[in-house]
Amino acid sequence: MAEAVAARKRKVTKRGATRRQLLEVAGRLFDVKGYTGTSIRDIASAMDTSISNIYHYFGSKEGLWNEIHRNSVRQLPVRLREAVAAETDPVLQLRRLLRVHLELADQFQRESRIFFVNADQVDATRNSRQRQIQREVLDVYLEVLQRLRKQGRVRMRHPQIAAFNILGLLNWMLRWYRPEGKLSAAEVHREIISFALRGIGIPD
Amino acid sequence: MAEAVAARKRKVTKRGATRRQLLEVAGRLFDVKGYTGTSIRDIASAMDTSISNIYHYFGSKEGLWNEIHRNSVRQLPVRLREAVAAETDPVLQLRRLLRVHLELADQFQRESRIFFVNADQVDATRNSRQRQIQREVLDVYLEVLQRLRKQGRVRMRHPQIAAFNILGLLNWMLRWYRPEGKLSAAEVHREIISFALRGIGIPD
Repeated sequence: MAEAVAARKRKVTKRGATRRQLLEVAGRLFDVKGYTGTSIRDIASAMDTSISNIYHYFGSKEGLWNEIHRNSVRQLPVRLREAVAAETDPVLQLRRLLRVHLELADQFQRESRIFFVNADQVDATRNSRQRQIQREVLDVYLEVLQRLRKQGRVRMRHPQIAAFNILGLLNWMLRWYRPEGKLSAAEVHREIISFALRGIGIPD
Repeated sequence: MAEAVAARKRKVTKRGATRRQLLEVAGRLFDVKGYTGTSIRDIASAMDTSISNIYHYFGSKEGLWNEIHRNSVRQLPVRLREAVAAETDPVLQLRRLLRVHLELADQFQRESRIFFVNADQVDATRNSRQRQIQREVLDVYLEVLQRLRKQGRVRMRHPQIAAFNILGLLNWMLRWYRPEGKLSAAEVHREIISFALRGIGIPD
């Protein structure tokens, strides 16, 4: 009895490990070759497994994509809203928002690149889900920026453009920043936050 | 004789028109579906022509890609260097650089998106040519920013990060700006230029 339980546990653990490995390999390929450029065959051969094994775990390439999405960027809007809710002064809200966003971008660097930066726009459903999250992220920034403008503490004419500019800084970093480079993540984040705040007229 | 010349001219003109139309259609598809996601067959069917006709004009999908590249973003580094050379004061150099860059981004909005923003990274040669141009563009900014720092007129610690931030603003605009929207291109450009200058500590 105890042995049967142990055997089932080993099986579940092994299943979990294979799943995680498949997600990892698929994520790497989607990042480098794009969703369209990556076939189930590519993923299978990179993992030295069969195509049917991947279908067994995820149903389809779309299933893999959804799972990576769910484990990463789908959490972003909620985490950003929490960051804002933790402060009352809008300057502090924006600072915390930027810090948390940059930390999450680090944590999900590859996934953010897949879903926000390199996303090939081939499938309308997939694309609309990505846009939905980007829209939610944009809204978090817009609300804080509008609050700042109402208080007369910023110099921008159009909060919308400022919000896009800030997202441009953050998302572009996903392209150029290499953790193995000369500058630490903390240093890069500090510079980007200063640039963003000064950009809208808040001196640091 | 005159008739033969006229007939040849008509043929040449028609050839030119077909070429331009193929470039236009391919550019649109590369923009929406990515290079990998677009097949020669897609282009042929969008133009209601044969695949062999496309091979006749461009040799390959790669040939089409190269031609679009040559007609657009390949000119960017040269035009940006000219903008810098037209001024002596580095603040004015940066202002003109930003203005010219935004104008070119407008002119080549789709192509810039194809080559800089949505580029799928599937082919090493193609990717390295794109990176080369991005590197040259980055260098133009870096030189001006280093000059500004030498004169003690800016507040950034790392010109490299500032240059990436500025390119982030400009390239991100290719994603979100819609000419048919509420804001005019001139208004958007003005805001982005102010944001960039303030971002590095130059008041506007």
